[in-house]
Amino acid sequence: MVMNLFSPVKPNHSLFDKHKSVVEQAIDSVHKREYFAQYPEMPSPKVYGETAESEQKAIFEGQVNNFFSRLMQSSDSQLVCEECSPYTGKPLSISYPACSNARGYIQHAMSAAPDWMRTDVQTRAGILVEALERMKDAFFEIAFATMHTTGQAYLMSFQASGPHAADRALEAIAIGFQELTRFPQQQVSWDKPAGKVNLKLLKFYTTVPRGLALAIGCSTFPVWNTLPGVFASLITGNPVIVKPHPKAIYPIAIVVAIIQKVLAENGFSPDLVMLAVDTEAKPIAKQLAEAAEIKIIDFTGGNSFGQYVESLPGKVTFTEMAGVNSVIIDSVRDLNAMAQNLAFSICLYSGQMCTAPQNIFVPASGIKAGGEHVSLAQVEEALIQAIKGLAEHPKAGPAVLGAIQSRATHERIAEADKSVGKGKVLLASQPLTNPDFPDILAATPLLLEIPATEQAVYKKEMFGPIAYIIPTSDTQESIKLASDLATACGAISCAAYTTEDDVMLQIAEAMANSGTPVSFNLTGGIYVNQSAAFSDFHVTGGNPSGNASLTDPEFVLKRFTRTQARVNLAD
Amino acid sequence: MVMNLFSPVKPNHSLFDKHKSVVEQAIDSVHKREYFAQYPEMPSPKVYGETAESEQKAIFEGQVNNFFSRLMQSSDSQLVCEECSPYTGKPLSISYPACSNARGYIQHAMSAAPDWMRTDVQTRAGILVEALERMKDAFFEIAFATMHTTGQAYLMSFQASGPHAADRALEAIAIGFQELTRFPQQQVSWDKPAGKVNLKLLKFYTTVPRGLALAIGCSTFPVWNTLPGVFASLITGNPVIVKPHPKAIYPIAIVVAIIQKVLAENGFSPDLVMLAVDTEAKPIAKQLAEAAEIKIIDFTGGNSFGQYVESLPGKVTFTEMAGVNSVIIDSVRDLNAMAQNLAFSICLYSGQMCTAPQNIFVPASGIKAGGEHVSLAQVEEALIQAIKGLAEHPKAGPAVLGAIQSRATHERIAEADKSVGKGKVLLASQPLTNPDFPDILAATPLLLEIPATEQAVYKKEMFGPIAYIIPTSDTQESIKLASDLATACGAISCAAYTTEDDVMLQIAEAMANSGTPVSFNLTGGIYVNQSAAFSDFHVTGGNPSGNASLTDPEFVLKRFTRTQARVNLAD
Repeated sequence: MVMNLFSPVKPNHSLFDKHKSVVEQAIDSVHKREYFAQYPEMPSPKVYGETAESEQKAIFEGQVNNFFSRLMQSSDSQLVCEECSPYTGKPLSISYPACSNARGYIQHAMSAAPDWMRTDVQTRAGILVEALERMKDAFFEIAFATMHTTGQAYLMSFQASGPHAADRALEAIAIGFQELTRFPQQQVSWDKPAGKVNLKLLKFYTTVPRGLALAIGCSTFPVWNTLPGVFASLITGNPVIVKPHPKAIYPIAIVVAIIQKVLAENGFSPDLVMLAVDTEAKPIAKQLAEAAEIKIIDFTGGNSFGQYVESLPGKVTFTEMAGVNSVIIDSVRDLNAMAQNLAFSICLYSGQMCTAPQNIFVPASGIKAGGEHVSLAQVEEALIQAIKGLAEHPKAGPAVLGAIQSRATHERIAEADKSVGKGKVLLASQPLTNPDFPDILAATPLLLEIPATEQAVYKKEMFGPIAYIIPTSDTQESIKLASDLATACGAISCAAYTTEDDVMLQIAEAMANSGTPVSFNLTGGIYVNQSAAFSDFHVTGGNPSGNASLTDPEFVLKRFTRTQARVNLAD
Repeated sequence: MVMNLFSPVKPNHSLFDKHKSVVEQAIDSVHKREYFAQYPEMPSPKVYGETAESEQKAIFEGQVNNFFSRLMQSSDSQLVCEECSPYTGKPLSISYPACSNARGYIQHAMSAAPDWMRTDVQTRAGILVEALERMKDAFFEIAFATMHTTGQAYLMSFQASGPHAADRALEAIAIGFQELTRFPQQQVSWDKPAGKVNLKLLKFYTTVPRGLALAIGCSTFPVWNTLPGVFASLITGNPVIVKPHPKAIYPIAIVVAIIQKVLAENGFSPDLVMLAVDTEAKPIAKQLAEAAEIKIIDFTGGNSFGQYVESLPGKVTFTEMAGVNSVIIDSVRDLNAMAQNLAFSICLYSGQMCTAPQNIFVPASGIKAGGEHVSLAQVEEALIQAIKGLAEHPKAGPAVLGAIQSRATHERIAEADKSVGKGKVLLASQPLTNPDFPDILAATPLLLEIPATEQAVYKKEMFGPIAYIIPTSDTQESIKLASDLATACGAISCAAYTTEDDVMLQIAEAMANSGTPVSFNLTGGIYVNQSAAFSDFHVTGGNPSGNASLTDPEFVLKRFTRTQARVNLAD
């Protein structure tokens, strides 16, 4: 009798044994949802090594203007890519190995697939956690690469593309591991009483990867938004083609090269994760997405391409698109504490986060602050001063606002300014100077007041340093506008300020029903923009801002199917 | 401070407390996948009551030609439906409460929704298990209703629409309960170390039902194929409109009425599950399916409607469509034991099961049976004799074959007969007489031999008592044809016979990769057609026969989203 019908190919648990406690801790944490981080978020020399930053800065500088030779994947050509630093305005001029035809990536990845599809989850988990541990040793290089492609400030570049992205990847490994081992891995004896005798079957369960995955990245968070899908696909046995945004390749290329190296060291083909670069003039995303072999697509980016991805027949898709995020101000304990917190959230990376607030709903009659009535004008003034105080601060301004990734985002500020119509400018955007980077593309936030009736203006995502204050008749209208907007146009975050328990309950309920997490009364060092691995579900799939959530069980489950075999023992 | 931001509406755990051990046992069993059944499958008077059968037969007889008055749902009219007994040829002439406009169902269900969406999982689980317990007291009426709409024989009618369907529903409750309680239900304290102080948030998690569900039933298994989706939608908080096949309403109407009664007894609107009947002349399925309010669709039936359902934008769909099921015969211990087992599977309910075998691949050079070589002709002869012995047996024949549900299925036999082309008829179909029902629509199976090259003939699902023997060059070709067919056209079951371990491994792997469970060497009282709740995943979602699986975690997870709220404690 066959003892296991679905024996794994090339099982090797040595790396899993090495990282077992990390996987177990991650599975435990993701289910408890208390604070947990495997990778420390501060670029502390004590944690990451005294020389790490300077050494990796040198690697970064050596990489600029050169061929990216670390990738081990099959290729037949090189492509000079279009990355350009928002800080210096200069092209990075890095060339990457490429396939001259999009089919090449598919063929190489498919050839690599069978062993990975049929090995066991321990083998996969060991290799993937090992890759994250190696990634840790490149966090500084990844940070410089992120800074000079996305325009994020240095600290955010380190955190978002380094420890936070690695934690999100580990979270995907953890939930994947849990789901793949949820049902029996060994044979199950099925004994059905049937009168005098029992009917007996041996049953064997297995999981079948969906097939080739495609991960399409965005220009602002090339690692954080790409890694969860890549690791979710890999842990569940699917090879992945990573198609980064043509302007933000270098940061994710470093990670892909690391995964390839660990795969190769452990006897698997590096082509299991391939980097497929392209240019804006000659994009390949659609060619890849429409290929019959592509069964899974992860996408972060704009609505029109996202909706195209979701509409493709026969694909499992995971999307994150535009959101129009609201702030509901009902009442506060400390007006200035609120204003400073909101100002930081508006300034952070110049509003280029999917979680950045855009529409701030405030009763036209004013609010209660610390028990006193304050007018709308006073609320606006507090926010204006807080934004000015931060954005115009010579040190904090550049460190928080960073740079603007693209010309299109920069031009959107002027466009918003012109569309003010019946509204008014509360705070004009100014060029932001940075003493270290005289040629930086940067601007301080634009704050407008727009009437609640002008939905056509504020229902659009105005990606960038643009925020609207929208006076409402009362908090009830604020809640209705915010939740209707989330339902109709999508939202990824919501901040709310209220000192009243019943209003808090009402906001939580209304925004939950429109698929939007709410953060209440944030002040001090916690911001609505932040989404923590192991604790916060990022995007819910419950409104048009995306159809997936990082990382809920669906995010891994849809990447494989379950099947079984039954063997009659009586024969 | 608010202690729970997402407080349940109308929580009442009294029924949950009553049925808690059933839910816990079901959750345990579904994860162990050993044999478990909550509802005994034999219609034993000792189990179900000495008078249950006769009493419920009287209810059935009283219901025929009458208004179905048990439904508590809102309605504005009555509709005389088109159900007709395949045993007597006579219409059942039952009328049902109806809404004169499809929008009526949607409006009533939507009005009923808010309380159910916002109550807790214990309240829902208690009510739903209680409904199954009440359904148990109607198993015999459901059996007669099933028999005289689907044409299933009496015992199968009892088992499939009674205990087996209730077990599948309980399985959906169990996995739903598990997933809804997987992450913390109470507030979680999130404490992030940040230098000298900790950043603190209280986090609250909640689940948000997707919205109104539509369950579209089929004519052959109106309860078994409908209940899992209905219970999966209900446990996850979604109201459901049940749109049965116009020829098989009565069995599911009984169950819907029971659920409505238990809902109403517990303070919830009976409109949370509405029966929406229609006629073949004036169908309403598309009107319902396309309504914006419908967010979830469960469908069992033909490919063209199923593909239409899957293509609807903005819906979560769960489909089961046609499959072309294969048998791979490589080698056997006992030729006659195999032939008898296969003959039973071919005869059972006249091949009108989604798991019935259709294409039997056998090497043209014959096989080894009990260590001896036997020719293809001998294999064919054994199967012919086994089918004849069963189908022509005066007692067993009618009890196993039942009746043919529709004229279209009956006509398919003649159609298959004519399409034989380069093949040959091995066993002609004969009218099947039933002494109890002189006007029965029934026929014995048609067995044809078709060359492997004639894929156009055998790649179509020939729903009904039709099977093909397909000679192949060897078992390798059999495996390739069976797995390619499953990948291209869908398959829900596969039977295989081999005495060789390496062949078994190869078949299990190939069929798993084409999303098809395999049963090896079945003889005696276990048949490939059977799919057991708590143990067998029914349909995998891994080939064109459907995009869902009963009941894997995805089957419940896609019916709700998760979101959260964070509250700053430091404010």
